[in-house]
Amino acid sequence: MKSEKQFLELIDTHFTRDHEFLKLGRGDDCAVITGTKDLCVSSDLFLEDVHFRRDYFSAEDIGYKALAVNISDIAAMGAKPIAFTMDLMVPTDLDEEFWNGFFKGMAVLARQNDITLAGGDLSRSDKLGVSISIFGVAGGSGKFLTRGNCEPGDILFTIGDIGLARVGFMTLEAFGKKGQEIFPAAVNAHLRPKPKVLIGTLLNAAGIKGLMDVSDGLACDLPRFLGPGLGADLQIPASDLHGHVVAFALGVGDDPVKIAMIGGEDYALLGAASPTDMDKVGSVPGMTIIGTVTDGPDIIVNGTPFEVSGFDHFDT
Amino acid sequence: MKSEKQFLELIDTHFTRDHEFLKLGRGDDCAVITGTKDLCVSSDLFLEDVHFRRDYFSAEDIGYKALAVNISDIAAMGAKPIAFTMDLMVPTDLDEEFWNGFFKGMAVLARQNDITLAGGDLSRSDKLGVSISIFGVAGGSGKFLTRGNCEPGDILFTIGDIGLARVGFMTLEAFGKKGQEIFPAAVNAHLRPKPKVLIGTLLNAAGIKGLMDVSDGLACDLPRFLGPGLGADLQIPASDLHGHVVAFALGVGDDPVKIAMIGGEDYALLGAASPTDMDKVGSVPGMTIIGTVTDGPDIIVNGTPFEVSGFDHFDT
Repeated sequence: MKSEKQFLELIDTHFTRDHEFLKLGRGDDCAVITGTKDLCVSSDLFLEDVHFRRDYFSAEDIGYKALAVNISDIAAMGAKPIAFTMDLMVPTDLDEEFWNGFFKGMAVLARQNDITLAGGDLSRSDKLGVSISIFGVAGGSGKFLTRGNCEPGDILFTIGDIGLARVGFMTLEAFGKKGQEIFPAAVNAHLRPKPKVLIGTLLNAAGIKGLMDVSDGLACDLPRFLGPGLGADLQIPASDLHGHVVAFALGVGDDPVKIAMIGGEDYALLGAASPTDMDKVGSVPGMTIIGTVTDGPDIIVNGTPFEVSGFDHFDT
Repeated sequence: MKSEKQFLELIDTHFTRDHEFLKLGRGDDCAVITGTKDLCVSSDLFLEDVHFRRDYFSAEDIGYKALAVNISDIAAMGAKPIAFTMDLMVPTDLDEEFWNGFFKGMAVLARQNDITLAGGDLSRSDKLGVSISIFGVAGGSGKFLTRGNCEPGDILFTIGDIGLARVGFMTLEAFGKKGQEIFPAAVNAHLRPKPKVLIGTLLNAAGIKGLMDVSDGLACDLPRFLGPGLGADLQIPASDLHGHVVAFALGVGDDPVKIAMIGGEDYALLGAASPTDMDKVGSVPGMTIIGTVTDGPDIIVNGTPFEVSGFDHFDT
């Protein structure tokens, strides 16, 4: 891949230019998105040796996950993604085969979600990196699901496994690609997280109070979700966790619930609903009730206050 | 700057969260932009040692230019920027003083243009890098100015100096910060390009045919602007160029017009208008008429076909 032209032609073979919400596609100074509906917008980085490693992520995995983590932010607003822009940092050592795989992995996910690539930028760089901005619209009500809006007594729930991606990450770090054979579901949760767009829109229609994308682990994200002054009383039995989390915890002599709480890159959804709405909300598939909102600031897990580890991207 | 929290607090001291077009500001999974108007969207990278060097860009310059190059894309649509998201790649060796300067340089430009920072992402990285996505709206007519739409006989014009930023870049590369004393205006054109938002909106209101941001140099961008099948007959006397371009050319024994044509990072505007509209369009301040659109594919400069150098980010 020596020229920008070659890159743009390859991109054209993978991504359509047209979309119902796009008046002008890529190729000009800007793209133009139709302004009939409020637009939710999010932006995420996906950088080599920070968010992924090339030795156990395939080209397809990298392309897939770079877009998936962005779609997950739209899902967490109870919205539907429509388009994205991509800034691509391109090292010299990657050939057309790599890029074909990269765009393929990304394009499959884009097609599944009916999203178009609206524009972006390309630059040389020492390491591979992707910065994506993604745009979404809300369904019929036009309402987006924000964080918080909770009060004591509200029911807290998750959609998707917590802790599983962390087990996958640690397995891959320890065993490389061979980790796939040890904990395939966990490894897959790290390499190919599934954004939960449909579930998010169903929860939005069912009238829940708030929704959030769990990307830094429940222990870190739950206080962000609740906001200041509120706490939570959680019941998370090990039997609710994925078998790989339990098996991994057994292997390393740790508490599976702690691993699940610390998590990281779960791309699960964390939501809250008032108890009176639970008959409607509870019918959404894949939901696990994890506890209730309290008026204290503490996070209680299975009867014991959980020490929030203070995980920060900048400490790692 | 050790924690994400510290970063976000510093950002809050520089950028407001509210904007007329923003229903929900930064801090949630997504921001929400009000959907009453069509939105133009662009995305650009600004990377250390690719787009800037830390030894002659101050922190303020880096923050300023990262946003300026994005605003320029909105200006080239004849639109007004309203908000941006920023993904920031943060090396470990930069302290709070640096970041304060960085955000300050960016925030001054954001305030001048009444733009809000809607969201983004932070990550550790080996080198400093910024990926910005920016959003804009069109004025009264709701029309955006795209590239092309030209026909033979249309008048081509530029707004802003061409070649000047290239002279600044080459001076800085050769002399470092001391270059400022040699060609101050040229160096300033490279460090602090001025996005031409007001001019863009005036040109839009005056009814020109098309407008484009000249960032890769006129020789490279003019064929992109014209599209396939069209050419141009340009008259660019050296007397129309900035004195620094002429002086630099003299010093290195090169043709000033060639330097202006090759350019790069001009962030000038290139536009076309039909001859019958020139009485309206010609009153826009700062315009330089550079020639006419022809039906041949050649770019003729001062009577001689100009060899397009085939500049490509990926060759450099």
